[in-house]
Amino acid sequence: MAPMLSSTLAMNPAVSTLRAIFSPRSVAVYGASADPAKFGGRVMQFLLKHGYAGRIVPVHPTAAEVLGIPALPRLNGSGIVVDACLLALPSAHLTTALEDAGRAGVRGAVVITADFAETGAEGAARQNELVTIARRHGLRLIGPNCLGYINPPLNLALTSSVALAAGPMPRGTIGLACQSGSLMASLISHAQDCGAGFSVAATVGNQADIELCDLIEYFIDDETTRAICLYVEGLKDGRRFLELARRAHAAGKPILAVKAGRSEAGQQLTQSHTASLAGSHAVWEAACRDHAVILLDDPEALIYCADFLIRSGVPQSSTIAVISPSGGTVAVTGDRVAAAGLALASPGAATEAVLRPLLPPGRMINPLDVGGLPRASGLDSALAAYRAFAADPAIGAILIAVATTPQLEDKVRQWGQAALEAGKPTAILLTPGTLVDGARQALRDIGSPFTNRLDDALRVLRAAVDYGEALRNPPPSAPASTISEIALKHASTLPAGRLNEPDTKKLLRSCGIATTEDMLAPTVDKALAQARQIGWPVVLKGVSRALVHKSEAGAVQLNLQDEAALRAAWQAIAAGLSTHQAGAVLDGCVVQPMLKGGHELIVGCRWDAQFGPVVIVGSGGVLVEILDDVQMAVAPVSADHAKRLISQLRIAPVLNGARGRKPADIDALADTVARLSTIATALGPRLTELDINPLLVLEAGRGAIALDGRATLTA
Amino acid sequence: MAPMLSSTLAMNPAVSTLRAIFSPRSVAVYGASADPAKFGGRVMQFLLKHGYAGRIVPVHPTAAEVLGIPALPRLNGSGIVVDACLLALPSAHLTTALEDAGRAGVRGAVVITADFAETGAEGAARQNELVTIARRHGLRLIGPNCLGYINPPLNLALTSSVALAAGPMPRGTIGLACQSGSLMASLISHAQDCGAGFSVAATVGNQADIELCDLIEYFIDDETTRAICLYVEGLKDGRRFLELARRAHAAGKPILAVKAGRSEAGQQLTQSHTASLAGSHAVWEAACRDHAVILLDDPEALIYCADFLIRSGVPQSSTIAVISPSGGTVAVTGDRVAAAGLALASPGAATEAVLRPLLPPGRMINPLDVGGLPRASGLDSALAAYRAFAADPAIGAILIAVATTPQLEDKVRQWGQAALEAGKPTAILLTPGTLVDGARQALRDIGSPFTNRLDDALRVLRAAVDYGEALRNPPPSAPASTISEIALKHASTLPAGRLNEPDTKKLLRSCGIATTEDMLAPTVDKALAQARQIGWPVVLKGVSRALVHKSEAGAVQLNLQDEAALRAAWQAIAAGLSTHQAGAVLDGCVVQPMLKGGHELIVGCRWDAQFGPVVIVGSGGVLVEILDDVQMAVAPVSADHAKRLISQLRIAPVLNGARGRKPADIDALADTVARLSTIATALGPRLTELDINPLLVLEAGRGAIALDGRATLTA
Repeated sequence: MAPMLSSTLAMNPAVSTLRAIFSPRSVAVYGASADPAKFGGRVMQFLLKHGYAGRIVPVHPTAAEVLGIPALPRLNGSGIVVDACLLALPSAHLTTALEDAGRAGVRGAVVITADFAETGAEGAARQNELVTIARRHGLRLIGPNCLGYINPPLNLALTSSVALAAGPMPRGTIGLACQSGSLMASLISHAQDCGAGFSVAATVGNQADIELCDLIEYFIDDETTRAICLYVEGLKDGRRFLELARRAHAAGKPILAVKAGRSEAGQQLTQSHTASLAGSHAVWEAACRDHAVILLDDPEALIYCADFLIRSGVPQSSTIAVISPSGGTVAVTGDRVAAAGLALASPGAATEAVLRPLLPPGRMINPLDVGGLPRASGLDSALAAYRAFAADPAIGAILIAVATTPQLEDKVRQWGQAALEAGKPTAILLTPGTLVDGARQALRDIGSPFTNRLDDALRVLRAAVDYGEALRNPPPSAPASTISEIALKHASTLPAGRLNEPDTKKLLRSCGIATTEDMLAPTVDKALAQARQIGWPVVLKGVSRALVHKSEAGAVQLNLQDEAALRAAWQAIAAGLSTHQAGAVLDGCVVQPMLKGGHELIVGCRWDAQFGPVVIVGSGGVLVEILDDVQMAVAPVSADHAKRLISQLRIAPVLNGARGRKPADIDALADTVARLSTIATALGPRLTELDINPLLVLEAGRGAIALDGRATLTA
Repeated sequence: MAPMLSSTLAMNPAVSTLRAIFSPRSVAVYGASADPAKFGGRVMQFLLKHGYAGRIVPVHPTAAEVLGIPALPRLNGSGIVVDACLLALPSAHLTTALEDAGRAGVRGAVVITADFAETGAEGAARQNELVTIARRHGLRLIGPNCLGYINPPLNLALTSSVALAAGPMPRGTIGLACQSGSLMASLISHAQDCGAGFSVAATVGNQADIELCDLIEYFIDDETTRAICLYVEGLKDGRRFLELARRAHAAGKPILAVKAGRSEAGQQLTQSHTASLAGSHAVWEAACRDHAVILLDDPEALIYCADFLIRSGVPQSSTIAVISPSGGTVAVTGDRVAAAGLALASPGAATEAVLRPLLPPGRMINPLDVGGLPRASGLDSALAAYRAFAADPAIGAILIAVATTPQLEDKVRQWGQAALEAGKPTAILLTPGTLVDGARQALRDIGSPFTNRLDDALRVLRAAVDYGEALRNPPPSAPASTISEIALKHASTLPAGRLNEPDTKKLLRSCGIATTEDMLAPTVDKALAQARQIGWPVVLKGVSRALVHKSEAGAVQLNLQDEAALRAAWQAIAAGLSTHQAGAVLDGCVVQPMLKGGHELIVGCRWDAQFGPVVIVGSGGVLVEILDDVQMAVAPVSADHAKRLISQLRIAPVLNGARGRKPADIDALADTVARLSTIATALGPRLTELDINPLLVLEAGRGAIALDGRATLTA
């Protein structure tokens, strides 16, 4: 009962309140019922069934008792101190109950009732009303539109989820914060099946008050929790999330997350499911990658991956070995490893020396088929091979794919024992169905994690390898600005609206980013004069506030060799603009030197709903859409961080000088990315977007120069 | 017992022999034993346990009986007619036993013993010895290095796989041919779990005699079999496989396949596992796509996908709908659908009319969250929504993701019944673990397929949609040649070795493919004369038999404006060649006009170990490796087929004139692909490879022209 009596105070008051809520000395259930078909009936049933040792107070307008427990019509005035309550009531009765709980000094309320912000503006107003009542009493809310939580170490199930109707609650060290009640149920079931368990598993629903980040902070602070699993539909505060990710990283507690909203359909659904704004998924992915948050595509895999990291530990290197007595499984797994983004290890000489005598000539060492090997000096050759892998520092983690054989349970127990003893992260995979449930039980008995599908085994290994790499590469810290305060101050005074090409370039130059120097020529004769001054050939570009995609409107005319070509180009631009966009006014054209060679890239920044300013860098030019080659990061970024992003572009080998070409000026490109990220940070939400497209990156030492640019600012 | 007595004769003698083997009136077991730790012990045990009704003859040198069945020391001379025998013997006794079986007139022998071709040349020789004995007696072999087969409708398990130790054999209509014994065991287990079953499931091991294609032909011919599942490590005859795929397509029997050897590791493993040559995986994928063979990445998923196609039918359109009472699952599934290569359907107006009154305002229709909907006129709203989806012709297939709720079994039974009644392919997904095993049993009871992981549900839907599309798009037939017989005859007389650029182009021109007309200039002065004739600027290219990648060696010099530039370029080519490749001799240079505009593509052909001649078309130019944009097909292809390949290139939108550009001459490109495929077919294995790189594809109507080319021929 130590957690109940803990008096340690966390820095964030929400965390100490969550302690009171998750480890309460007593709980009240508004809407308590004896009928398991009702939410309040299941909550009562599960509270009793799982043996919560604290006081239970059913609150019911008329009943004297519920399931044998004395009930009260209200808490306020009863003199009973209750830490947490659950409200399973129709909407109409919620505010009264919440007022009662608030007056009675309850610290936290779990609101199961739905039909709030997730259904639109009217529901949002009712939700705000709940929050207002709670704030007035210093009461914190979980939900509404949630399913409650479980605290297995306390035998406490304060939830209506039918997952609690079966079996004992799975105790363990996974902290789960989940924006979906039924996904929590599925995860509880998988934890039960694979021998994993939770410190606390909680749903947060619409996050009207207590939100995912509060739970993450609680789990970082909670001594029992060793890994944090999240099902996220939307973050209330992306920057807080990243700060907590840094703290979790420092504390050695992996955060694993599934986030809905990758697709347009998913985004729309998160809105109507838990009133969540999903933000850009690409930004979310980039932010998580940079902050050691392991992203998964499958909710149930959260349990497998977290359990593996907790029980098997973190790989010290990023390559894996595969071993199986099934030749078919080895061949299939060998193929799937690369598809899962994993690399096969090259075992060292010591491993080779152990294995060669055990294997038929010519057999591949990794992945390793140990089917039909002879027994070696009383020890099974397959186990000897496994131990050699486990002792090899070149191997970060091992996949053992079990095949059906006689005495399977005994063999699997031996595999599991060997894995537990070896101390090397080892995923055991049992692909057959219920046929091998006995082997599964054997692994549960000895405390070894396992998976049932190759998909999950590969996810587990990928998550472990990714987390190992994240531990070796701490999240980036905020870089020092390389742009003068004056320039940034000036930038922040720019008027709202679209910035045309000349004005955007002026802003860029003031912040130390090279651009072509071009003035707006209001007439074709002025343009001709400029062209003669610059020297032929030139580029002519139409400038209009209304024009977004210049190329599509024919407003970029390249490689003009003489006066006739320039005049014809001006005509074409004017004609193209009027057909492309009715009513658009040509403000004039800019004349630029026709630069050749170098690489065209895009560098830009955006305002993201979850994370604020982000910076992007990507391939430009005509194949840009086909390449789909963009990297991004939450701004600001250092030049070093920018170089990491650039190195992950598909175009990177070309920039680095593949096939005998000269390398590009990656320093200048990285500097441009860093400077743009500083501008975005300084301007904050005012800068909706700014694009340099293209940025011409010249040979190493020769710099990078913005050939075109545009920006949009809000008031 | 009808299959046993069937006397229909198939066209292929292997098929009628396989009938005798798979539906034998009697079986003999060489190496029969009472000890289940031995192969021959398990075979006997499973034969008895599953109640095979035919005669069982244990063959044992000394024992009078095995497990109560009278045993013989040999078959020959016993007067007993045996259709099939299984040999579970040490290598040393195999040939004697096989001679005995042959003399006794046994029609087929299953050889479980391993250590043959899969271990190298010596084992291959011993394997050939077995085949020689078998051929001498007209006996067909399955294996060696296999695990036998099961015929559940006959209660016949002629296998040592421990999968047969549990439960009844799963009877059904899936035909499985498997090159891995332990994968067969896993698949039998999954079939048992999901309520699916087999007509016959057989392993083929090293395919020394009977091979996968024989089994495919058997299954096409077999009335019980409705879908064919394959685990393939290597095909003996790729063209026969494609011919059978055409027959299976015509018979409406889907072929689903997992093939090992996608990766280099996988290829090496198939060699040491079953002595299989994997061939190019890209060619395999292309051949399967064109011949309605559904490729999967996961062996267990074969069962789920085949069972779904058999029991749920084929989608009539390619878009899907998702429905679930779990908002979280709906959001996650919405995201995963696109990642699985599936498209969400846009439900029609009639569906909208049914659903809108049931849903809160603004809720998305597909994917559809039916959580917490009110009951509508006595009928559950969720079921009403499902039925509306099922009736909508715009929806090809439906995914129902079940969530944990009270009365789950009853609800799931209702979902399953509705799906069976609706007649629309519907995948039911139960993501929780054993918590919902009751619901699984309910679905088994009513005969409804289901899956347990979102990965598999999406695989099932993707396979069904792909098969539906394949049924609507029959495999291509062999096109008529558009190249003169004389040209092809001449081509086939070319000498062995590398063809340089001028000779390759000569070959291309003779077959009606346009090329730049360039002669080899042996000296710089000759090159200068040619340049003056062609007109500046020109391209100068080094020609050397030793040179493979001209660009890397600096042997392609573009845009030469005058004599000085040409002389400098010649020097650079000579210098580059000697540093790039010691001992390489410069045969001279070719001079070409500097063509601008158009799109650079690669068109080529290769000889593949499994399928023979194949043709490829892909993006060329400097970004070619980054784009990784290649399509291929088994040659020959028609121009229409070539256009389908071109339309699947990532560069296709650019070729079609995206962003206001002029469309490219796709007719000319397709014609070039078709002609090259005809050349490859005519030259057969003599043409190792031929590449046009680049082929310059000009604006529509202006043609395509080979700027460079090379070829390699064997003797």
